[in-house]
Amino acid sequence: MWAQIAEDLRSKITDGTYRPDTRLPTEAELTSLYGVARATVRQALTALVNEGLIVPRAPRGYFVRLRQPLFYRPQQEFRPQPKTPEMDRFMADHSAEGREPEQRIEVSIVDPPADVKQRLKLNEGELAAVRRRIRYLDGEPFNTNDSYYPLKFVQDTEIMRPVDIARGANEILAENGYPQVRALDEIYVRMPTPDEIRRLELGPGTPIACHICTGLCPDGTPVRVVVNILPGDRHVIVYERDGMDPGKR
Amino acid sequence: MWAQIAEDLRSKITDGTYRPDTRLPTEAELTSLYGVARATVRQALTALVNEGLIVPRAPRGYFVRLRQPLFYRPQQEFRPQPKTPEMDRFMADHSAEGREPEQRIEVSIVDPPADVKQRLKLNEGELAAVRRRIRYLDGEPFNTNDSYYPLKFVQDTEIMRPVDIARGANEILAENGYPQVRALDEIYVRMPTPDEIRRLELGPGTPIACHICTGLCPDGTPVRVVVNILPGDRHVIVYERDGMDPGKR
Repeated sequence: MWAQIAEDLRSKITDGTYRPDTRLPTEAELTSLYGVARATVRQALTALVNEGLIVPRAPRGYFVRLRQPLFYRPQQEFRPQPKTPEMDRFMADHSAEGREPEQRIEVSIVDPPADVKQRLKLNEGELAAVRRRIRYLDGEPFNTNDSYYPLKFVQDTEIMRPVDIARGANEILAENGYPQVRALDEIYVRMPTPDEIRRLELGPGTPIACHICTGLCPDGTPVRVVVNILPGDRHVIVYERDGMDPGKR
Repeated sequence: MWAQIAEDLRSKITDGTYRPDTRLPTEAELTSLYGVARATVRQALTALVNEGLIVPRAPRGYFVRLRQPLFYRPQQEFRPQPKTPEMDRFMADHSAEGREPEQRIEVSIVDPPADVKQRLKLNEGELAAVRRRIRYLDGEPFNTNDSYYPLKFVQDTEIMRPVDIARGANEILAENGYPQVRALDEIYVRMPTPDEIRRLELGPGTPIACHICTGLCPDGTPVRVVVNILPGDRHVIVYERDGMDPGKR
């Protein structure tokens, strides 16, 4: 019974009967609307909260979750301008105009986690510098960005200072003899850890994308591993791909 | 109290004390190990199931989830061979050798969902052909792939037949005057719908990536929209990126 009510509410959210950021009918209203026990209505609502479709905002009730995803384009660092008209349009449609960005930066010297160590090809005992950032939009945490660099490549550079680097950390690496000419992106999808839930203030039913980027020098030396945690309700990841040459097929 | 137990089990899973695909201690064992009520242990276990870290397998108990993600490379269709040695190695490391692939294909003519219609630039009333595929590995459903084509471009072609197209649907589109030379990829992360849970036999705590690919002709005409549903526990999405020219920076 509760599953049927959940299904009905779900389709009304999907088809726009209940619009984003508006309040659902109250528990009492739904109880009389469906002619069932209040506990049944509550079970249906809990299911939708866990799916990430609605959010409880006590004492006002349940609201349809508003998704205003931030446009996230890994290719941007190597290709500041979109190459195709479609990407250009997509970016314009998704611009987060008027939202105030802000970030907090923390720099530490660490023995990095095993998976980072392996990607950076660090030997046992070799340390890394990590720049940990939380990015906010309008005061709301949007994503975290932890950038690891082999310490031997970045000590005594600006990368060690916990402030924004206007010309970019990649530029500093290049100036120091480590230009990145290519990168490998891995995207994993999972539920957040308790630590991620806390740092990013995630609600129930909010999975995350973990984007791991490894930046490489011309000779294949990895000089940077970035771990980005992107809450699913706040991001869309976008790539543009150059196609095959129609003459060459 | 249950949160502390969950945290302890979580760190033992993360650090490898409890290894993938092995059984956790039983409820009774955990109850005496932590010196708490059985209900408390059960609450901790439920939290870990919802995070996707463990899976219940009655009557044997709870197992650490085994992740053997399938390597998913959107660039493959336009670039069959990896361009960089790193991608080449990554693909070799993640090959699913010995696993038996299989797929079910269904073709229909539909009035597509609004978001597909918009990406295909279809006018009101224009129909699409859709090839719906479920892909299996060793009998387990791995992902779904729904490819939409404007009906006017594909009617009377092989694309309308519900069988595998050895040379690929893109080749057929090209032969019919619609070569794709670029594509836009969008990746959304969310909890699955009940329909997706059913089709893909998803367990609790399994979010999905929804990858929407729009394929474009040289003049920008969209000729194909693919909606891929990729369960997070079974996939890693990978891209290789060409860097900037170090001389040009």
